[in-house]
Parts: sequence; structure tokens; C-alpha cells
Amino acid sequence: MQVIVPFATESPKTRLEGVLSATERREFARAMLEDVLEAVRATGHAPRVLATGPVEADVPIVIDDRPLSEAVNAQLDAHLGADGTASGVAVVMADLALATPVELAELFAESGDVVFVPGRGGGTNAFAARHPDFYVDYHGTSYLDHRTIAREIGADVSVVDSFRLSTDVDEPTDLVEVLCHGDGRARDFLVDAGFSLETTGGRVTISRSDE
Amino acid sequence: MQVIVPFATESPKTRLEGVLSATERREFARAMLEDVLEAVRATGHAPRVLATGPVEADVPIVIDDRPLSEAVNAQLDAHLGADGTASGVAVVMADLALATPVELAELFAESGDVVFVPGRGGGTNAFAARHPDFYVDYHGTSYLDHRTIAREIGADVSVVDSFRLSTDVDEPTDLVEVLCHGDGRARDFLVDAGFSLETTGGRVTISRSDE
Repeated sequence: MQVIVPFATESPKTRLEGVLSATERREFARAMLEDVLEAVRATGHAPRVLATGPVEADVPIVIDDRPLSEAVNAQLDAHLGADGTASGVAVVMADLALATPVELAELFAESGDVVFVPGRGGGTNAFAARHPDFYVDYHGTSYLDHRTIAREIGADVSVVDSFRLSTDVDEPTDLVEVLCHGDGRARDFLVDAGFSLETTGGRVTISRSDE
Repeated sequence: MQVIVPFATESPKTRLEGVLSATERREFARAMLEDVLEAVRATGHAPRVLATGPVEADVPIVIDDRPLSEAVNAQLDAHLGADGTASGVAVVMADLALATPVELAELFAESGDVVFVPGRGGGTNAFAARHPDFYVDYHGTSYLDHRTIAREIGADVSVVDSFRLSTDVDEPTDLVEVLCHGDGRARDFLVDAGFSLETTGGRVTISRSDE
């Protein structure tokens, strides 16, 4: 199975701008990418990065500066033709900081023309496709839209139910999950940057120590 | 296995007060409770409700008006003695509106002295305990605290990784998950109340029609 990890090289993770500087956001995004690539590799698959611009990583890079949906659809077109359908293509987002090989292996092994991993807020955090007509549209409630697309092309659908893979890291509250459940570079980055968990009024948030 | 579903009968779901009236919040909380009870029953287990006050439900009710941790610990004490340890006690929160029998059966069947289902934000959405010394403390980052408790009593720990069970419904953004992935009474309640999904600036939120 081809495993593709899309990665935005310019201004990544803008919704974290309240808690991380632009440089920090780039470093944090890179740390999450490396964690995801390592987890994919540990399943026995060789990931490729689909980047919007040049990026250093110890895996093959495909550069495509078009919007995410277009760039992913170009990859699906290239690899889900007559030859690619049997093994399939998986697309795994680069900000799944809690991903471990166990859940990714489940995604890659699950049967179905299209296998979805829903993310919080109606997103599609990962999928595996073996149907030549499947395509993506990440705008809006992409999980529901992708299910509609799968139905329209007559594809069998499976869903992998995983808290870890449902957790994409976009906003400050998501950092709680990384601090709580992570054990890779992304968590190390946050700890080194002074972040810790704090309980305020019974709710768990993050706090950052003065540097 | 004893399966206990704690339920607050007074002023439930206060963090939804921006989008639901007090009466609606009570009805919505009841709808979620019924969904959870039905999912537990479908696993072949007979749930009991641990309520802070009188509640109508077609299952045995235990009333205990103490704070959640105290009430749950009293149940653990009662059922994890010499006789109860073998089969164990499971505690499943009443606001897991996306729970289905598949994930709950996994929780009940998973081996381990204590089996945790983490929730978003450091919570413990469900657990199964077979160790006589296990106790709960739901304040703060309860998932990490519960893991510490398990370690201190020498209990083997397992974790069930489930997006559905990690989703407890506390805040307006959580309603997106119910509308997207639910298929029970809780979703019906929201649809009947006029809620639908809305995409604003690429992010998915809820909107409510005028009544």
C-alpha cells in the first residue's frame, strides 16, 4: 500500500498562534510529522511526504503546491489506476501526534474499498482507498462528504474507530491530548517549550512556564 | 460484570446552557443516558444507573447524592470484594452519545486488572476494574491520576482506544460529533430541536433554526 502524508510547509498550524511563535509552530509541525512517519515505518510501510514546498525528511518527497484536495486527488489518480487498485493508497495527516503503529496497521489492514478514520469536528484524519473512482474533498464536513462520495461510486466502506487517530492537533486545547497521551517528539517539544497540564475549575488546560 | 452508569439528575450538562434551555438539557441528558443503556444491554450486560436523585429508567437505580468519585468508590467497594473481583465492575459515563455495543463489548472483554477508556481533555470516560484496591478520583486529569492509582496498587493496565467512547458530550462543539456520528435518541433530539451542521470558514459548527 502506498502511504502518503500531506504536509504544509508554509505557515503550518496557524490556529496555535496564540501559544506558539511562527518558528515554534514550524518546529512543532515538523516534530509531529516525524512522529507520524516513524509510526508508519513501524508498520512495515514506506511513507512518502506530499509537501506544498521543499522539506527535509528522510523519506521520498513529492512537491505539489496546489490546495490539499487537488494534490491528494492527483496522487489517487496516479496510484489507483488499473495497477494500483489492488494494493491501494492510504493518506495519513501529518498532525496525528498520537498515532502509533497499532492503529495505523489496523487502518492499512482493514478490508473495504475505502476505509475511513474520522477526526474530531467532522474531519477525515486518514483513509485507505482501493477503489479507482474515489476522490477527496477536504472542505467542510469532509467525513460525511467522503462517505457520500464512497456511496455514489458504489464503494464498500469501513471505519476505524480510534481516539488516537481521531486526534489531529490544530488548537491549543489539542495540546492537552499530546501532553496526556503522547510519547514522541511532539510531546518532547511541548515539554521542552515549558508546557504542562493545569487543572482549573475542574477542567484541564495547558499552561506555559516563563522562559 | 457489573455495569454502572452514573447520572446526575439535577442541572445536568450546564456547559450547554448557551445552546439549550434547562429543560432541554435535562431531556438531552436523558436521551444520551437511554442510548448508553441500550448499547450496554446490547452487549448482553444488565446496566444499573447510579443516580444523584430519583430518575425514571427501565433498569435498577441506585441513588447516592454524594459527589461522583465518592459514589463510584462506594460501588467499587461493594462489588470488588472477595466475591466481585473475578467478574469485575465497569463504569460507563452517561454522556457517551456515540457509544455502540462493539466498543463497549471490547471494554468489557479486554483483559487487565483495570481497563481504561480515555476521554478528551484528560478524562476517564469508562473503565473496567477487577482489582479490589482500585478507586477513582475524577477531579482534574483523571486519566493520568487513575493510571497512577493503578500503578500504585500493582494493577495490570489495558487501554481501549476508541474515538466513539472518547467522545463525552459536554460542550456545544461536542454536538457536532453527535450530529455527525450519532444514530440514536440523542441525535434525534438535536435534529428535532432544529440543530444542523454548518461549515463556516472551513470549520464545522452547529447552527439552530428558528422555532
